[in-house]
Amino acid sequence: MIATVMDTTTMSGRDVRMASRTGEFAQPTSGAAPDIVQTNVAILPRDLAFDFLVFCQRNPKPCPVIEVLEAGQTEAVLSARDSDIRSDVPMYRVYRYGELVEEPNDISEIWRADLVTFLLGCSFTFEHALIRNGVHLPYYGTDKNVAMYKTSIETAPAGPFGGPMVVTHRWVPREKVVRAVQATSRFPAVHGAPVHIGDPI
Amino acid sequence: MIATVMDTTTMSGRDVRMASRTGEFAQPTSGAAPDIVQTNVAILPRDLAFDFLVFCQRNPKPCPVIEVLEAGQTEAVLSARDSDIRSDVPMYRVYRYGELVEEPNDISEIWRADLVTFLLGCSFTFEHALIRNGVHLPYYGTDKNVAMYKTSIETAPAGPFGGPMVVTHRWVPREKVVRAVQATSRFPAVHGAPVHIGDPI
Repeated sequence: MIATVMDTTTMSGRDVRMASRTGEFAQPTSGAAPDIVQTNVAILPRDLAFDFLVFCQRNPKPCPVIEVLEAGQTEAVLSARDSDIRSDVPMYRVYRYGELVEEPNDISEIWRADLVTFLLGCSFTFEHALIRNGVHLPYYGTDKNVAMYKTSIETAPAGPFGGPMVVTHRWVPREKVVRAVQATSRFPAVHGAPVHIGDPI
Repeated sequence: MIATVMDTTTMSGRDVRMASRTGEFAQPTSGAAPDIVQTNVAILPRDLAFDFLVFCQRNPKPCPVIEVLEAGQTEAVLSARDSDIRSDVPMYRVYRYGELVEEPNDISEIWRADLVTFLLGCSFTFEHALIRNGVHLPYYGTDKNVAMYKTSIETAPAGPFGGPMVVTHRWVPREKVVRAVQATSRFPAVHGAPVHIGDPI
């Protein structure tokens, strides 16, 4: 099936997951399922899972943990009943030894019993609040993605995990900055308040 | 050295750790080092560490993680510089296969390279705020401990970890209840606001 650009702003979280499962939906999820918490997904072998969870604990701003699935578990029991992590993400990036090798929309065939899934809060969650406060986000509800940058801010390392913090970037008119800070600060579990405001140099 | 009852309310966190290290101090830490975050300490073999950290993540109210030390690491680098987790706790309980086998005040001799230390926020941290707000805590700054109970509230299990939530219990006069809730709610990382107020039946 060829994925088409969909208006997901009227869909529920379950709708988006089901459309991702069938392959009908394969675009970034900005704008999708307003008022539902969105998460980033990281899936790692169990051998690395403890160090990664410690990394998240030490870096709650970039890596706020919403749910950790047990090794081999495919349903996010606490956050998304009847979900299947092998198919319900619009698209996956598969890394082997640090190299991107594949971008499938289903990972059932490479799933393993020792894989541990981490759901980390995603800033798309608070974009609806920005929109309602009059901040324009040109990619919202389209097949485009938000701008992302590597910063010069180092994360606190844990085991093999570390490196610079990555941030999303939104243009906010000067007169909307205070309101944007107010609105996003209410969402600490999904990247909440800005890391930086103004000229990033 | 025989430990004596000490007034720790004028000591710093470092003072308390050093007195614990020498064996001079071996009592509960209620009242100690006001305005410093106190933590509970859990030390587990690395094999169990991931499941325990997931358990904490699923139960942030009873198990708020302040710091996780890497396997074998004995200094709490982020929270307590120059500390040594093998000696700086006033007293330890050593469990083998679920059974309490020893209560030493130093665990250097049984320390292992695969042991992972978890520092979990402790409600003793907010007792100074209660005292300043006129709530009397009879054990505060003495060699007695706060009352603790197993509740009928189940925790969210993770791997082999689970069971009923344990709470501390403080008597607060009716006219101080609102103030006590206000004062403790500011400390979500150390058991913060009450789990229950009133008759526990």
